[in-house]
Amino acid sequence: MTTAHGDVETPAFMPVGTQGAVKGVTHRDLDELGAEILLSNTYHLYLRPGDGLIARRGGLHRFIGWNKPILTDSGGFQIFSLAGRRTIDEEGARFRSHLDGSAHLLTPERATDIQAQLGSDVAMVLDECLAHPSTEDEARVSMARTLRWAGRARDRLLALRAGPVNGVVVTNPGQAQFGIVQGGVFPGLREESARSTAALGFEAYAIGGLSVGEPIDVMYDVVGRTTRWLPGDRPRYLMGTGTPEDLVESVARGIDLFDCVLPTRNARNGQLFTSQGRLNIKNARYAEDDSPPDPECGCSTCRRFSRAYLRHLFVTGEMNGATLNTLHNLHFYLDTIRRIREAISFGRFESFRRAFTERLSGQPSDS
Amino acid sequence: MTTAHGDVETPAFMPVGTQGAVKGVTHRDLDELGAEILLSNTYHLYLRPGDGLIARRGGLHRFIGWNKPILTDSGGFQIFSLAGRRTIDEEGARFRSHLDGSAHLLTPERATDIQAQLGSDVAMVLDECLAHPSTEDEARVSMARTLRWAGRARDRLLALRAGPVNGVVVTNPGQAQFGIVQGGVFPGLREESARSTAALGFEAYAIGGLSVGEPIDVMYDVVGRTTRWLPGDRPRYLMGTGTPEDLVESVARGIDLFDCVLPTRNARNGQLFTSQGRLNIKNARYAEDDSPPDPECGCSTCRRFSRAYLRHLFVTGEMNGATLNTLHNLHFYLDTIRRIREAISFGRFESFRRAFTERLSGQPSDS
Repeated sequence: MTTAHGDVETPAFMPVGTQGAVKGVTHRDLDELGAEILLSNTYHLYLRPGDGLIARRGGLHRFIGWNKPILTDSGGFQIFSLAGRRTIDEEGARFRSHLDGSAHLLTPERATDIQAQLGSDVAMVLDECLAHPSTEDEARVSMARTLRWAGRARDRLLALRAGPVNGVVVTNPGQAQFGIVQGGVFPGLREESARSTAALGFEAYAIGGLSVGEPIDVMYDVVGRTTRWLPGDRPRYLMGTGTPEDLVESVARGIDLFDCVLPTRNARNGQLFTSQGRLNIKNARYAEDDSPPDPECGCSTCRRFSRAYLRHLFVTGEMNGATLNTLHNLHFYLDTIRRIREAISFGRFESFRRAFTERLSGQPSDS
Repeated sequence: MTTAHGDVETPAFMPVGTQGAVKGVTHRDLDELGAEILLSNTYHLYLRPGDGLIARRGGLHRFIGWNKPILTDSGGFQIFSLAGRRTIDEEGARFRSHLDGSAHLLTPERATDIQAQLGSDVAMVLDECLAHPSTEDEARVSMARTLRWAGRARDRLLALRAGPVNGVVVTNPGQAQFGIVQGGVFPGLREESARSTAALGFEAYAIGGLSVGEPIDVMYDVVGRTTRWLPGDRPRYLMGTGTPEDLVESVARGIDLFDCVLPTRNARNGQLFTSQGRLNIKNARYAEDDSPPDPECGCSTCRRFSRAYLRHLFVTGEMNGATLNTLHNLHFYLDTIRRIREAISFGRFESFRRAFTERLSGQPSDS
């Protein structure tokens, strides 16, 4: 995948830097872990410090000191999570800030403008994120609105590329814009959404509205059916997913790009992803365990620290515990995706996939 | 200074790793910052995870994955801070844990045993830490008790060196033990304490009971008078001090070793030490300031990040803010002490001291 701030090898995993920083690790850690692209959240940056301030700093890359690619979401997902504090109509999403209760309106055009000011390398269109479960009728209505919003977002980006619009400062003229396929768990709607979104001519496409509570087999099925309708020469991004197993299974179904808070958030809660399954470092049985979190892992945490020490840091609330756990989990995710790339390039992906799945399913994980 | 885990160039500054980790940074960060020795707190490690567990792991170095020198305090200072939850008598200090209220007794012998199990390279004797202000009579009584306790602590260490004592596991046979000079702000008491403590024959000596609220000139005066009575061929350690200016002024008075939580604690509160004075990153005036925290600093934070970004991280409560601030402050302290060493080795310490003081006093610092 080519961006205005360099190339990204796919399939790729994007660590989540919600407010312009990945919780628990520094940019230098991310460089060393081999992260090639970050995700940042438009909702949070819009509220604090504001896209205007970031544009005056020269854009998000310069503001946060990260020169490699950045993808920003549209802000929609966070707003749809503000239950009771938002209303949606054809114009856009009206919401109250979780910080100070102030009223805001996010339209497809405004989400495009904000991301133009942030200057991410990839901007996402504003989509409607439907809760699971939903009826097919609800999903159809919502999918259709997402499609109309996508057209408005695309029109605005093309206008911004053509010349000044309403004082919006375009800090990254090479910014790409991805459309988003919706349609719930209904194959017919997904097909219609994929075909119609592709017809709008985005630089690439994402699958949204999954990992929201549906059974895992349903998610895999929807992913497998949807990727068929997306252009084969453009990256396909599965938003907000998932476990290490989800990465492998989704690549098998044609996905190129992932983001997920699991490795970072779970690290802060003491859960480590390992080659032998998940490990909850707070469990008493690790109190005197001198082995590294994952004996097969080569990350800086596993090379130097024991489960006993990491448990001590967790129990005593030392922030270093969160950092060392995050370094390990991000290494595990980025190493998994690197091994997937290698397996693909050597034509051995299917055997890699089988071995990966068998290994994890044969091991009991901590609850 | 030579220890069982390698040499330390003096004067040296010890970052504080209260519970076996320096808050906000990893051991690797400390390696890169050039930290040669850490301080860890016996009180905290005794309560969690316990010196017994650490001894079963092979000692503190192996438990925390740090192979360079470690100094442990005696636990006394923390216990004396437990107002209302501790009583002192000739035997030792009785206290209730701040964690679960359980009752404990720390005697000079027990403090020695615990540190022998931790296996630090330098153990400190249990001393009585008197509050400021105190009368000369109070200070005399307390100093005399500290002296008796020092004798008991030394006897216990010599017994541990000679052979097994009560099942104590000595995890670092090369452990040194430092005596502590007390005596409040009274020169006569300080002289008596220094002479008598030195007579007990410790590997080296510390000055305790300062930086507890006395005027800065009084502290410098006591330091200057006390170092005269301490052996010239042994390191002199000023406990719990201080500001960058304190480091320079205390080296001028014969101090070789420092520890202080200021660089790490203040970093977490948003205060940065710079060549131009202190800077409070939360101030609104830094919101759009693209310059690095300290334009003359070469640390990883100043090379990559702006005041505007660090303020954003602080305001949004991102833990990375604490980390980046801590990296800067520790660099500033360790760089200051390195420059002091260089100035001494080139015979230019007095001119360095003058320039350092004039520079800081000429600059207004943030409140």
